[in-house]
Amino acid sequence: MKALPGFRDFLPDQCAARNYIFARWREVARRYGFVEWEGPILEPTELYKKKSGSEIVDQLFNFTDKGEREVAMRPELTPTLARVVAAHERGFRKPLKWFSIGQFFRYEKPQRGRLREHFQLNCDIVGEESLSADAELIALAIDAMRIFGFTANEFTVCISDRSAWNQFISENNIDSERVAEFLQIVDKLDRYRLDELETKLKPFRVSTAKLSDFLASGNIEMATGVGEELRRRGLSTFVEFDLHVVRGLAYYTGVVFELFDRQKKFRAIAGGGRYDNLIRQLSGGAISMPALGFAMGDVVLGDLINETPAARLQMHNQFQWNLWIDIYVVIAKEERRSDALAIIQALRDRFCPPLHRNYHVSYPLVAEKVGKQFQNAEGLGARVAILIGDEWPDVKVKILHTRKEQLIGKQQLFDHLQSLMRAAVQEDQFIARL
Amino acid sequence: MKALPGFRDFLPDQCAARNYIFARWREVARRYGFVEWEGPILEPTELYKKKSGSEIVDQLFNFTDKGEREVAMRPELTPTLARVVAAHERGFRKPLKWFSIGQFFRYEKPQRGRLREHFQLNCDIVGEESLSADAELIALAIDAMRIFGFTANEFTVCISDRSAWNQFISENNIDSERVAEFLQIVDKLDRYRLDELETKLKPFRVSTAKLSDFLASGNIEMATGVGEELRRRGLSTFVEFDLHVVRGLAYYTGVVFELFDRQKKFRAIAGGGRYDNLIRQLSGGAISMPALGFAMGDVVLGDLINETPAARLQMHNQFQWNLWIDIYVVIAKEERRSDALAIIQALRDRFCPPLHRNYHVSYPLVAEKVGKQFQNAEGLGARVAILIGDEWPDVKVKILHTRKEQLIGKQQLFDHLQSLMRAAVQEDQFIARL
Repeated sequence: MKALPGFRDFLPDQCAARNYIFARWREVARRYGFVEWEGPILEPTELYKKKSGSEIVDQLFNFTDKGEREVAMRPELTPTLARVVAAHERGFRKPLKWFSIGQFFRYEKPQRGRLREHFQLNCDIVGEESLSADAELIALAIDAMRIFGFTANEFTVCISDRSAWNQFISENNIDSERVAEFLQIVDKLDRYRLDELETKLKPFRVSTAKLSDFLASGNIEMATGVGEELRRRGLSTFVEFDLHVVRGLAYYTGVVFELFDRQKKFRAIAGGGRYDNLIRQLSGGAISMPALGFAMGDVVLGDLINETPAARLQMHNQFQWNLWIDIYVVIAKEERRSDALAIIQALRDRFCPPLHRNYHVSYPLVAEKVGKQFQNAEGLGARVAILIGDEWPDVKVKILHTRKEQLIGKQQLFDHLQSLMRAAVQEDQFIARL
Repeated sequence: MKALPGFRDFLPDQCAARNYIFARWREVARRYGFVEWEGPILEPTELYKKKSGSEIVDQLFNFTDKGEREVAMRPELTPTLARVVAAHERGFRKPLKWFSIGQFFRYEKPQRGRLREHFQLNCDIVGEESLSADAELIALAIDAMRIFGFTANEFTVCISDRSAWNQFISENNIDSERVAEFLQIVDKLDRYRLDELETKLKPFRVSTAKLSDFLASGNIEMATGVGEELRRRGLSTFVEFDLHVVRGLAYYTGVVFELFDRQKKFRAIAGGGRYDNLIRQLSGGAISMPALGFAMGDVVLGDLINETPAARLQMHNQFQWNLWIDIYVVIAKEERRSDALAIIQALRDRFCPPLHRNYHVSYPLVAEKVGKQFQNAEGLGARVAILIGDEWPDVKVKILHTRKEQLIGKQQLFDHLQSLMRAAVQEDQFIARL
């Protein structure tokens, strides 16, 4: 038996990588003063039918539940956000700056960078129409890459403007019923040969020349203000303006943006923009609030971390504190198991200031040769082994990577361990950044 | 539009409570040397049909996906663990000590302590048949309560033994086809009046007297060894032996246990036990490994935290570091917005040793009156406000809860903030335990 196609089992090192991504996402969103919230994984299908656009609806994991409700595993978070904000906005100071880390589902062909499930960081600002909000959001998206060790050599943010497109659409008299279809063509522009593109555009009575002129104009009034704010923050090197970016989803209204690796080897790492009308539409006109947001998925990001040496090293440096233990208690005499268990419990109960947490401790569940126990200690990544045996009530404390050992009285054990851990933390400065 | 019945929206303070529970679960499992893994939320329905027992299968959120696969949103983790271990066990040192924090789904009537989704901590030990493993697992379950501030006044672990029941079943010639049904009756014993119980037991030819005698015997040989190990760890006050506990699921084989609040006001807080045959069954006989585990849900636990003053206080003390920001930058002169943005970016980029992380910073996205900005700063829970205005390049730094303020040169700002944060951390010792 295997997992379903497009679904992942996270073995311990894959789970540590996932948790590393989550922890960094949470940390960067908090730096920006965003607070965390979460919605349900299952929602009424209706929520997506209304506004997300047809591509996403065709890819839903949807079904009828045992209570005859039409339900869907969520493909994206924005409609849930609009629903929750419409219901609860009165209880919160505006603008809302909210983020969320959760799992999303789409039934499509699994391929590189795209599975049937993935995790996303979603960050949204609700209740502010000023371009300052767009700048704050894009700055956060940039820092959500920098926090993994990526620099302007590795990624770029392409900023575009749906309202410029809307103007183009109105000037070229494109049928309002077919705007989504037109934007889908633009979204996938670089996949078509020129003659294919001409055929695609024919029904819209737009020539490729006219489209090229528009794309080259790069005349993005709104985005200029955003660019200026990003420059003040020292983030200009990460930014490009590019009308090619339109975003697939139907509900965007203003500035839109996508993050790409510099070599464009991968799909977009993240994307988002303004959706000023969605909350009004989903609340049936009861509440109207400007809003904007972006999402960053874990799959492309994970691939990029793995292919970027500095980012990979940063991740692996932090692994050991998730995957490894601090102390292995070697029971050299079975007669001392009772004493060992008391010490193990005391260690797990004990706060260690240099580690900012209690000790992580393991031991042999059944009698084993001492040599085998030391092998286990190293296999589990322990820093220190405590050997309990003939010398009791003294114990041997051994630093595993230097093989230095010392006989310590039971009374002095905790002080001694604390100074060992202080030294270990100073060696591994990164722990301070966990 | 609302969330589906039995599904929760997590607004920021509810999400902070959830994250607090997750963080404590993760920490206690790591103390015991368990490593984190995770499985998919959607699995082949087959995985549950085989072994979980009929009650759980009737409550599945199951459907046929777009590729004609029978799939189900997972109701529990153990079958996935057995699947993953059977596929990957060769890559890991035994015994495995694995934990997981994830969401699970059951279609049943939403009621107090039970929704249609909940989060669970799952902890499992695979590859060790000794009772030492049962003791280690139960000790972890106890500490998974102590870590929230609960004491022996608030909860108890009831330990029982499925193998004693199996002996009772065989001595009383209960039809092997109907064992699950019989155990379900025992599991819900205290819901029946005596005459109801007699009717229920009649088909099994077991008298209530015989059942009472067995329950009173409390003769749990295996559990005695477990009790002794827990005593050595100083955990006896948390433990009771009680054959009433059988656990609903069909696959348990040995020691089983449940955690209850002392007053038994709530459903079980956690439960688990040994399932030595499940991995063999799910691997079609290819691999045989003894295993045991428990799960603790977030719903009953959350209710109990809210009803226990010490536990609630501990949770709220830690909230502020998830919900609140550190610094609010007040822009007193719009002409200084550029300078403010540069400072904001620098603060967010700056590691603050006493906090063990970077600063969390917010500011007004558009021009606002200074008084309103200070209100916002307090509403967002900021410790410190930095006022940028006429005094530039000096700035005013104000500690919000004491209202003490000081004029500081831009150059000295970071040193000054760091010493303020050091004082704040010393005031709130709990941050060290986050």
